[in-house]
Amino acid sequence: MTKPKRDYPVENIRRLLEPGPIVLVSSAWKGETNIMTMGWHTVLEFTPSLVGCVIASSNHSFGMIRNSGECVINIPTADMVDTVVKIGNSDGDEIDKFGTFNLTPAKASKVKAPLVRECFANLECKIHDTRMVNKYNFFIFKVVKAHVTPHRPLPQTLHYHGQGIFTTDGRKMNKAAGFTKWRDTATF
Amino acid sequence: MTKPKRDYPVENIRRLLEPGPIVLVSSAWKGETNIMTMGWHTVLEFTPSLVGCVIASSNHSFGMIRNSGECVINIPTADMVDTVVKIGNSDGDEIDKFGTFNLTPAKASKVKAPLVRECFANLECKIHDTRMVNKYNFFIFKVVKAHVTPHRPLPQTLHYHGQGIFTTDGRKMNKAAGFTKWRDTATF
Repeated sequence: MTKPKRDYPVENIRRLLEPGPIVLVSSAWKGETNIMTMGWHTVLEFTPSLVGCVIASSNHSFGMIRNSGECVINIPTADMVDTVVKIGNSDGDEIDKFGTFNLTPAKASKVKAPLVRECFANLECKIHDTRMVNKYNFFIFKVVKAHVTPHRPLPQTLHYHGQGIFTTDGRKMNKAAGFTKWRDTATF
Repeated sequence: MTKPKRDYPVENIRRLLEPGPIVLVSSAWKGETNIMTMGWHTVLEFTPSLVGCVIASSNHSFGMIRNSGECVINIPTADMVDTVVKIGNSDGDEIDKFGTFNLTPAKASKVKAPLVRECFANLECKIHDTRMVNKYNFFIFKVVKAHVTPHRPLPQTLHYHGQGIFTTDGRKMNKAAGFTKWRDTATF
């Protein structure tokens, strides 16, 4: 999917992450880039737009993200499942993942880490709080810029269930009429 | 769904939570019980079995959980969507959610908070770390006991996309052959 993307309000990224998609985290440090697959993340706040993620210290990306203070959270569509599996089962210190898996690094606006162009959403992130990194490998990022391919409804993503099993998004149910207490105004 | 449940290994609960389901959090404090809907959570570790969750301080459950040090994370099946919406759009200080929504409080093994029997999975949790509660309303829980209705494959759950939109789990893809680097052994 290489349609042009639009800016997306960072306070609305819960619409992209709360459903629980597998994401690709890209990073750059000292002339090198890397990509990792990541499934342990949560939205933490609307404004500032905060996301918490577990990035295991055994991962090559861990040092690159901690040292650069930045990353991009890229959300792949369901058709990218084989690439997602390959990225998650290879080592960034052995191969160039962009080149090996035919992915396109695109220039970000506010961070040096590259966007993965083939993903439908790219969230540029800066480290906001590292207090939980040493104990839990848990980074708190602030989303400083978001790019999303206009698509209505949003495209199908991947959900990981362990044991090599993924599902896509299934049947959609609109229950907005019951939301009398909470409302959100994202319309894109 | 009221079939008898079985013990589920707490180190395998990533299989239940990593796909990103909306969950119901039940709590008890001073003779009162409550249930809230929650979508901002992530697995943090296999062993000990740790889960991080955002529980807004404006929520009636916040004080009950912080004071009791416990809760149960219950995972509803997709057919419970209307109940999930009602729980998320009502106030625990105004109504008894178990009684109002015809849900059955069942006795937990290791915590005083009740299980929501109608949910297919119940994760008994104790607070493990409160360092991020004041700043981010982010609780780190240790799952001390898990109960799951035997069901293969696991039943469809709910994913929340904002604006009142939910999806269920869709098409399943088995990519285990590509998992050469990471393996997990959960088989239930």
